Amino acid sequence: MMGTLSTRVLFKREPRGLPTVSDFEVVETELPELGPEQFLVRGLYLSLDPYMRMLMGGGWQFRGSSMTPGQTMVGRVLGEVLESNHAGFNVGDHVVGGFGWQTHAISDGADVDFKVMPRDGISLTAYLGACGSNGLTAWAGLKLIGDAKAGETVLVSAAAGSVGSAVGQIAKAMGCRAIGIAGGAEKCALVVEEFGFDACCDYKRGDLVAQIAAAADNGVDIYFDNVGAEMLDNILPLLNKFARVPVCGVLSQYNAEGEPYGVKNTRLIFDKSLRLQGFLVSQYRDRWTEGRAELEALVASGALRYRETVAIGIHNAPEAFIGMLSGHNLGKQLVKLT
Amino acid sequence: MMGTLSTRVLFKREPRGLPTVSDFEVVETELPELGPEQFLVRGLYLSLDPYMRMLMGGGWQFRGSSMTPGQTMVGRVLGEVLESNHAGFNVGDHVVGGFGWQTHAISDGADVDFKVMPRDGISLTAYLGACGSNGLTAWAGLKLIGDAKAGETVLVSAAAGSVGSAVGQIAKAMGCRAIGIAGGAEKCALVVEEFGFDACCDYKRGDLVAQIAAAADNGVDIYFDNVGAEMLDNILPLLNKFARVPVCGVLSQYNAEGEPYGVKNTRLIFDKSLRLQGFLVSQYRDRWTEGRAELEALVASGALRYRETVAIGIHNAPEAFIGMLSGHNLGKQLVKLT
Repeated sequence: MMGTLSTRVLFKREPRGLPTVSDFEVVETELPELGPEQFLVRGLYLSLDPYMRMLMGGGWQFRGSSMTPGQTMVGRVLGEVLESNHAGFNVGDHVVGGFGWQTHAISDGADVDFKVMPRDGISLTAYLGACGSNGLTAWAGLKLIGDAKAGETVLVSAAAGSVGSAVGQIAKAMGCRAIGIAGGAEKCALVVEEFGFDACCDYKRGDLVAQIAAAADNGVDIYFDNVGAEMLDNILPLLNKFARVPVCGVLSQYNAEGEPYGVKNTRLIFDKSLRLQGFLVSQYRDRWTEGRAELEALVASGALRYRETVAIGIHNAPEAFIGMLSGHNLGKQLVKLT
Repeated sequence: MMGTLSTRVLFKREPRGLPTVSDFEVVETELPELGPEQFLVRGLYLSLDPYMRMLMGGGWQFRGSSMTPGQTMVGRVLGEVLESNHAGFNVGDHVVGGFGWQTHAISDGADVDFKVMPRDGISLTAYLGACGSNGLTAWAGLKLIGDAKAGETVLVSAAAGSVGSAVGQIAKAMGCRAIGIAGGAEKCALVVEEFGFDACCDYKRGDLVAQIAAAADNGVDIYFDNVGAEMLDNILPLLNKFARVPVCGVLSQYNAEGEPYGVKNTRLIFDKSLRLQGFLVSQYRDRWTEGRAELEALVASGALRYRETVAIGIHNAPEAFIGMLSGHNLGKQLVKLT
């Protein structure tokens, strides 16, 4: 009797700069028989995210981790349990986990993030975005690190992205003023009109500080930082005393070459009693259930909106990934696996 | 009937660079009669601290505050109540408060930090240093901001100073490893031999990073930062994941001219999930009683030691202050007022 076939995308070699499809290899593998306490997952959707580029190395890095050529591409997948020898997972269960870029996977549960309990008004794919790691990242950064309170002003960079757009919408739902930063008039319009921010500042216009100062007439209490470096340096003088800066990413640095940018305004950390804190959503696993319940309520009520771009078929994952890195997607980039 | 005479030191004019005695003026003033709910304090000791230079302006600044020429110099004083119309303060009470550079002051209690309950084994002057704002600054930074735990490695800059030396000794008492940074072999010897740090690194030797790396073989969990800028930049790569950086001062920047130093390693805030937080001891007023009790126990047991340099007489305060800014003092600089 033959085992289940899984179509996988392997990490073939380290790209320099933007990856090409030849940096990936699509293979078909026969999975082994299920062992005790294991189950078989059929992947429905794969989430594509910028950190994967960092894991491919070639001069880039993501918190010191990297993949080895020949390895299945790392990734988070929404799947359905097809067979199970595991008491905790039943056939038909929906799960989100780190199953990688493949159509089928065998799991012992250790790589499962959470089980999805489908409910009305929430699409399954939301569990890879607004109700999944993107939404939880926004929620944890804003509430657990940022300690946001009603009436405060929240500024977020990369505001049109899946994390940034959630930050502003959660902030609005809490009674905060939400100001976004995004690149270009189209993205800024999306941030205000679709995601309901109070304002969005266009960093491509060249007068970012003046735009933020005009939008944040009471100063900024929380700067949710996805970018780092020069933008952080420019924003530090706009922060209020006791402001918090959840540091969620350093987009500006992922592809930086040469000497990194030097942040000149660090003395303001002392002068204004600021708090800057880096984090990963995985560090708040014990709060995920609480966070997801809030996110589900916001999505179901329409207060938390999101956009998705969906590529069809695992074979198209590399091209969709390259497109996302080039900014061709709008909102969350997914791959429909089957 | 004549009121009490107070000898005061006024802020006369903004110095450029190091102040001179002609930037101060010593005057004698007759205090008014005591009003209801007021009391008369006779100053015993005045604490001299670097922040006072910042308040004198002339291109320097301290968190946006400054003094106006003609004003009595700001300062913290240990005094004794001589007369009282205030129900909360009795004749003979010892108090620490912001009475300024003067021999006598009238207070309504608003400028009082705390009442001193003299006890065996603790000198009254300790309440301006190790059991006062310096010790409380060390305690709050290390415990409340730094969240120090037994077994962790604590690194502190300006380790021979009144705050830095307390940080290392409190850390040792908590079961941490304490590593200091100071300038010169003499100060480093004091830090290890008198204050009991495990090691002290001499930044004047030019191989500071290598010295710290050798002393902190398990990395650094808490960097208590009194200096900022370039030293912070050099230390960021030595910090462990989840390290905390209580930012207590920016000594390097107080006298800096031109463009401030740019900190290049800020992406490590994200990569290592670091927390950097600026603070002032005055923000933790609700924890002072608890902190002071711990500090008193450490001083009384000999676990928390300190050095003092005492100038005699209010007329000598300007010269003592200039000497302190030039590094002529050893440990806490005080002025005996009467």
